[in-house]
Amino acid sequence: MTEDVAEHRELIIAGTGIAGLTAAIYGGRANLDPLVLEGDEPGGQLTLTTDVANYPGFPEGISGPDLVNNMKAQASKFGADLEHGIVVDVDDSDRPFRVEVNDGTVYTCDAFVAASGASARTLGVPGEDELMGYGISTCATCDGAFFRDEDMLVVGGGDAAMEEASFLTKFADTVYVVHRRDEFRAEDYWVERVEDHVEDDDVEILENTELLEVEGSPEDGVDQVVLAEHPEGHPTDKLDHEETETFEFDVGAVFLAIGHTPNTEYLEGTGVELDDEGYIRTKGGDGGDQTATDVEGIFGAGDVVDYHYQQAITAGGMGCKAAIDADQYLENLTGTQAASTESAAEADD
Amino acid sequence: MTEDVAEHRELIIAGTGIAGLTAAIYGGRANLDPLVLEGDEPGGQLTLTTDVANYPGFPEGISGPDLVNNMKAQASKFGADLEHGIVVDVDDSDRPFRVEVNDGTVYTCDAFVAASGASARTLGVPGEDELMGYGISTCATCDGAFFRDEDMLVVGGGDAAMEEASFLTKFADTVYVVHRRDEFRAEDYWVERVEDHVEDDDVEILENTELLEVEGSPEDGVDQVVLAEHPEGHPTDKLDHEETETFEFDVGAVFLAIGHTPNTEYLEGTGVELDDEGYIRTKGGDGGDQTATDVEGIFGAGDVVDYHYQQAITAGGMGCKAAIDADQYLENLTGTQAASTESAAEADD
Repeated sequence: MTEDVAEHRELIIAGTGIAGLTAAIYGGRANLDPLVLEGDEPGGQLTLTTDVANYPGFPEGISGPDLVNNMKAQASKFGADLEHGIVVDVDDSDRPFRVEVNDGTVYTCDAFVAASGASARTLGVPGEDELMGYGISTCATCDGAFFRDEDMLVVGGGDAAMEEASFLTKFADTVYVVHRRDEFRAEDYWVERVEDHVEDDDVEILENTELLEVEGSPEDGVDQVVLAEHPEGHPTDKLDHEETETFEFDVGAVFLAIGHTPNTEYLEGTGVELDDEGYIRTKGGDGGDQTATDVEGIFGAGDVVDYHYQQAITAGGMGCKAAIDADQYLENLTGTQAASTESAAEADD
Repeated sequence: MTEDVAEHRELIIAGTGIAGLTAAIYGGRANLDPLVLEGDEPGGQLTLTTDVANYPGFPEGISGPDLVNNMKAQASKFGADLEHGIVVDVDDSDRPFRVEVNDGTVYTCDAFVAASGASARTLGVPGEDELMGYGISTCATCDGAFFRDEDMLVVGGGDAAMEEASFLTKFADTVYVVHRRDEFRAEDYWVERVEDHVEDDDVEILENTELLEVEGSPEDGVDQVVLAEHPEGHPTDKLDHEETETFEFDVGAVFLAIGHTPNTEYLEGTGVELDDEGYIRTKGGDGGDQTATDVEGIFGAGDVVDYHYQQAITAGGMGCKAAIDADQYLENLTGTQAASTESAAEADD
């Protein structure tokens, strides 16, 4: 069965967050004529942040969307093509790779950079969409310093929530940790850190409690939240129980730390190794080829690989490495192809 | 013997290149009040580049010094102190670490980020200092695209020289590789790539040849070079030999690829593992603590670790990771200290 292939490209990049766009800038400058597919969150996680203060080079800060747009312009300038489309399947059973997009378009490519990011999990409660980036954040490291001396709410019970709560004590009047159970699944190290902060009156734990609603406005930020508590936990499942108490609570900022989901479903049929949570495992180490996956010619960069640091500058660093690794792979491939053409020619003599 | 300690800091960072400044931005934002010591090349390698086109976020490019100054302002804004001083010794035999600077000043610190870079080796020939950044470059990836369709000269015979020569064929009319011997020490892979380019008339090898002088001006760039050739190699050692031929040669750009030297002499008395060339070995892998060295509390970032990619954005990524790793280490340390103070108090009861 032959299939209509829309286009063949040397390099296809999935994702237009910082990792994908940096790979596009470097891929463009290396004359690889990359095609960049935007994914379902064009611009990536950074578009959720109104003021990026920690991306090096902008002492007055820059908005997330502006930084992303700058990088898009830069990638385009160097020859990258950015197109809408969510990659739904990569077929690595043959070469070139076959890349299928959600509208049914099929591309082929010699090298592929997976920079499809990880999506922060959200709660789906009223006020969340409206105030995301205006007092609700999924990144304490990015946004904590904007709410100096305010009371802050952290939602979650894992390592990320504990780490963010500890970090936020640098800035907050009090950090309130809202957790739906009475035990944290975070590692002891982080629970102990938070307990130290509780002893110092910097952190207060709200056990068996869940966030029902966030109130405020994009202009004035978060005003207050509505919480529910049930002595046996998971109150939102028991809102009509007699013992469930619903109450309003004043805070100036809400940090959601309920995890991220890496966007790697489209790689599940390939030989690319994913960890239990779906993050791509890359070669790492020192020297070249750090972003290589288990499939030669497929590289990984950004939050789809990095479940720990998840900063704009770290994602950019990996995107750069992925493009340099891909360029070296393609240079190698051309050498090999030239060699086999030569052998074929010799065989004809 | 007691010694006058000028100051104790939670975090000292050696180096004000992109890695050091990014560590300073993140360290400042994490309220670690970092002291940043500039080293002997303030601003690092990037100050040698007049137009940084590939640092993501600046679609119109930015000069190396401007980018560095932006980052210095940003680091200062978040509480980092930048001071002159070259670290000449780190003593890790006790805690806090003892950090000695070239003027004799001694600091102590709880955590130390080595971001002291690697210095590109230069030849010391006439014209080199004057035209560095104006047609002479130590980074093909950074600067190759500025000399599109010109003849380019690459000096060197190792992997970096072969890789840069191959890369520059994307842009150059012809790439001339000048090597003082008639054999390359580069790995076969790279020599074969270059030989392919020679067959395609994209590269020409000038064996047993050395660069004596670069002529031109900062305004108009490189005009021509003076080369010397001796049939048995190493012509500069044999300039008065009858067989040595000296000649002028027209090129539009000169790329020096004769290696880098990591600035790690000050770490030689510590437990930090260095490789044969003096680069710092860090933990790497996925998850946290990627920039950790063999000495707890000492972290490495930038070109002093990375001998391969050596880009501004990759150095920035590692600087960010080092600051986050140091912050976590210090948070842990505070926890441990608090715990031991508590035990001591209990013992007193």
